[in-house]
Amino acid sequence: MTELPPPTLDDATRNRAELALCGLMAYRELTAFERLSSDARFSPTIIDRVALARLAVHEFGHYERVVEVITARGAEPADSMEPFVASIDALHDRTRPGDWYESLMKAHVIDSVSGDFYVAISRGLDPDIRRLVQEVQALDEQNKWLHERLQEALQEDPRLASRLALWGRRLLGEALTQARRIAESGLFNDALITPDGEEPLSVLFSELVENHSRRMAALGLTA
Amino acid sequence: MTELPPPTLDDATRNRAELALCGLMAYRELTAFERLSSDARFSPTIIDRVALARLAVHEFGHYERVVEVITARGAEPADSMEPFVASIDALHDRTRPGDWYESLMKAHVIDSVSGDFYVAISRGLDPDIRRLVQEVQALDEQNKWLHERLQEALQEDPRLASRLALWGRRLLGEALTQARRIAESGLFNDALITPDGEEPLSVLFSELVENHSRRMAALGLTA
Repeated sequence: MTELPPPTLDDATRNRAELALCGLMAYRELTAFERLSSDARFSPTIIDRVALARLAVHEFGHYERVVEVITARGAEPADSMEPFVASIDALHDRTRPGDWYESLMKAHVIDSVSGDFYVAISRGLDPDIRRLVQEVQALDEQNKWLHERLQEALQEDPRLASRLALWGRRLLGEALTQARRIAESGLFNDALITPDGEEPLSVLFSELVENHSRRMAALGLTA
Repeated sequence: MTELPPPTLDDATRNRAELALCGLMAYRELTAFERLSSDARFSPTIIDRVALARLAVHEFGHYERVVEVITARGAEPADSMEPFVASIDALHDRTRPGDWYESLMKAHVIDSVSGDFYVAISRGLDPDIRRLVQEVQALDEQNKWLHERLQEALQEDPRLASRLALWGRRLLGEALTQARRIAESGLFNDALITPDGEEPLSVLFSELVENHSRRMAALGLTA
């Protein structure tokens, strides 16, 4: 994504794309909080439950940060989130984890793919929005924990590998389908168009897939 | 409860009761977090969802505070929580809210009754534990929000009143049954016995019921 020159946007278009991106991030973080904290109950141990709960609380903190920005811009958070409610709810409904490990994997895959997607959208946007995106996606510590916990689980029970690899591919497919739908919704079109006329979606999508494969390989899974 | 003189406990008994109380509070706060945040999804509006989510995050903060105290005393949080897991899980399973309003009511009733119960147990315990109990139960702001939101809902739809009054009585019954079971478990017996030989459980229970009735009356509901 970094190879593409950022698009030049007029003020109205940029402002619209910025609010839309904030609404998208806010609703995703809010629902990630709700789903993760519900899933936490199915954790194998209390320690794991708490770890997942802490992750969820972290996502809620991101939600509150994004909402601050929306409000500071004079917009209504509920209005900004509204265009994304149906599609994000549908994504969650189509990706209900069957157990705690699938829940970890979902957090790992969907958070990462979404993060990459937000970064791509924000390329031509204001520096403060790009910083917000970085902040919301500053999941280093959590992703490290998710990665290590998944690795540990895979070592303890090698039969998990094929199930989680399959689940990872399904999650990627769902995340990409949603990203494409959002990219084509018209809310971000201009923000995703490059000045040299290159078709940025194909570049973006191949990069999303590549990053995903690298993460799966790091877990010893076939992407 | 304040009328009863606090019991005098030897160090070992007091220490045991303190760790048990911390374990009880920790597990209750953790599960309150999990249940509230799951219920949040069924809220009528995004604003209500966020309010319930924020309440849940608050409970998780309490959990972390209590766990700090357990750890500082050299105990293992999971061990301290263990004696309460089955009964608290069972309480939650028997009190699954049918909708968002029942979820609000559950938070309101169970948090309040539990708080009164913790205060009663902590009478003869160390000042730092009594402060911790106060902190965990410092739900003033949340209880105010819960109260106002319930009041608003009852005004909008008067048919809610009989349903929520019935639900409130069921919640009280379940909470008292659990409190009695915990009081009789032997973990807190000494902490709940007064020096003048008065049977403190009956005093405690009538006070729990009285406080509950006052809260229901404040909502215009028949307790």
